[in-house]
Amino acid sequence: MPLHLVSVNNFPTAAGLASSAAGFAALVRAIANLYDLPHSPTELSKVARQGSGSACRSLMGGYVAWRAGTAKDGSDSVAEEVAPVSHWPEMRALILVVSADKKGVPSTAGMQTTVETSTLFPSRANDIVPKRMAEMEKAIQEKDFPTFAKITMMDSNSFHAVCLDSWPPIHYLNDVSRAAMNAVETINKRAGELVAAYTFDAGPNAVIYYQEKDETTVAGVFKYVLQAVGGWDSEYGAAIRRNERGGLESKSVMTMKAGISRVICTGVGGGPEQVDQHLVDERGRPVSV
Amino acid sequence: MPLHLVSVNNFPTAAGLASSAAGFAALVRAIANLYDLPHSPTELSKVARQGSGSACRSLMGGYVAWRAGTAKDGSDSVAEEVAPVSHWPEMRALILVVSADKKGVPSTAGMQTTVETSTLFPSRANDIVPKRMAEMEKAIQEKDFPTFAKITMMDSNSFHAVCLDSWPPIHYLNDVSRAAMNAVETINKRAGELVAAYTFDAGPNAVIYYQEKDETTVAGVFKYVLQAVGGWDSEYGAAIRRNERGGLESKSVMTMKAGISRVICTGVGGGPEQVDQHLVDERGRPVSV
Repeated sequence: MPLHLVSVNNFPTAAGLASSAAGFAALVRAIANLYDLPHSPTELSKVARQGSGSACRSLMGGYVAWRAGTAKDGSDSVAEEVAPVSHWPEMRALILVVSADKKGVPSTAGMQTTVETSTLFPSRANDIVPKRMAEMEKAIQEKDFPTFAKITMMDSNSFHAVCLDSWPPIHYLNDVSRAAMNAVETINKRAGELVAAYTFDAGPNAVIYYQEKDETTVAGVFKYVLQAVGGWDSEYGAAIRRNERGGLESKSVMTMKAGISRVICTGVGGGPEQVDQHLVDERGRPVSV
Repeated sequence: MPLHLVSVNNFPTAAGLASSAAGFAALVRAIANLYDLPHSPTELSKVARQGSGSACRSLMGGYVAWRAGTAKDGSDSVAEEVAPVSHWPEMRALILVVSADKKGVPSTAGMQTTVETSTLFPSRANDIVPKRMAEMEKAIQEKDFPTFAKITMMDSNSFHAVCLDSWPPIHYLNDVSRAAMNAVETINKRAGELVAAYTFDAGPNAVIYYQEKDETTVAGVFKYVLQAVGGWDSEYGAAIRRNERGGLESKSVMTMKAGISRVICTGVGGGPEQVDQHLVDERGRPVSV
């Protein structure tokens, strides 16, 4: 069967927001559906992983773990569901899009450089990540947000630390990212507990997790500061009430206002869905078949 | 003998440029001279270290190593001369002063946080630094600038990596620091070898090492870009010829122009000197005795 593949996304591409993961996962799922392949999502994750490592996680909804595996050929490096969406549906994510510029270093090439050159990487890979994976799964099973938040932030920092420790060094975080980290620290300090968590993938954009109950305390502060940028109408965004009592440092506020171009309001969601009725052409326009 | 102590410096204070190291070393040396203490600089370094760890190194000129030591009470944590100035006098340092603002995190407190919380720190302290110390001493003995440069840059990055890996994370580098790193990378790439090395202490200011023979290739590029800022008349600075052929990325140039307030042109030098004839009062004015 000859195939004509069209890939469209509504996310900034090549900005460190997992656009390639989403694309490869959708591609693998669509082809599996087309050919009626009987493989489980975990089986398919082996295939998706070839396109972009993190794509293996995107074949499932909810909370997903990517197992490193031990086989030399990587055949047991697969994704598994840790918990379905229904286990902890209150999880929200506010994405602060710092720049939709192309990344300086593509994430796969960057990770190879880090593995080959960072002298701190072996400690991270062999000791720190396995320990945190177990702690994180427990935190998700117990819906323990403070623990989830602390591991999320510390592991993001550890990842960017080994990027900086690579040769040549890799910088994904910039001053705007750091202003977002500072804002989260302030929000948590004022709340007296961890109600927000930042994480950064291979780019400067902040992903800020919080629970629905803390919407005003967390997302409300950012909506007040960043009311001028687009994206507050997306998904959970419209309902967020602006909160002027964030107490953020003025320098962080100025840096975020100047450097953040858009927000995306989302949350934990499902996996790939078949949407035959929305076949589109190369420009994303609906096509009838 | 009652003492009236006056401390004056001509360096930005509390900006991560070792002002406290210079101050404590001068204080210890001055008191030792006053009382005719017979102690060697290495002996005195034990005392200076109590004020500010890095002060122990400032009691000697030339190339100095701070030995970690193994004694529990720190009594064998001292500084030693690796080579005198005369061994490699061609070493130059161009300091780009990014901000004379007070540091967010004082370096001693920051280092304590890192030791207590960074999960990557044990690997750095136990394995990476001791190995690099031996390699660096060899590079200095052999006047091997490319090796000196690579170790300098990698170890600076490793230090800032464990700062970022601390909890809460410590950020000394900012976008201006990264622009300076990028400029050094460009200069080295165009030279086809490592002729420049950046390093950052507990602050955003870049210290850029180069050898006298590469003055135009390295310092000349910064002098061309930063000709509007002050400090080019200091020590070796006046002789540096502006070099417009640096080929730096325009984004790095703009970031440096906007964020660097001053330069200091210096090089490897001597240790503390007694300057009785320059006794000064609290405002730095000469006093006759």
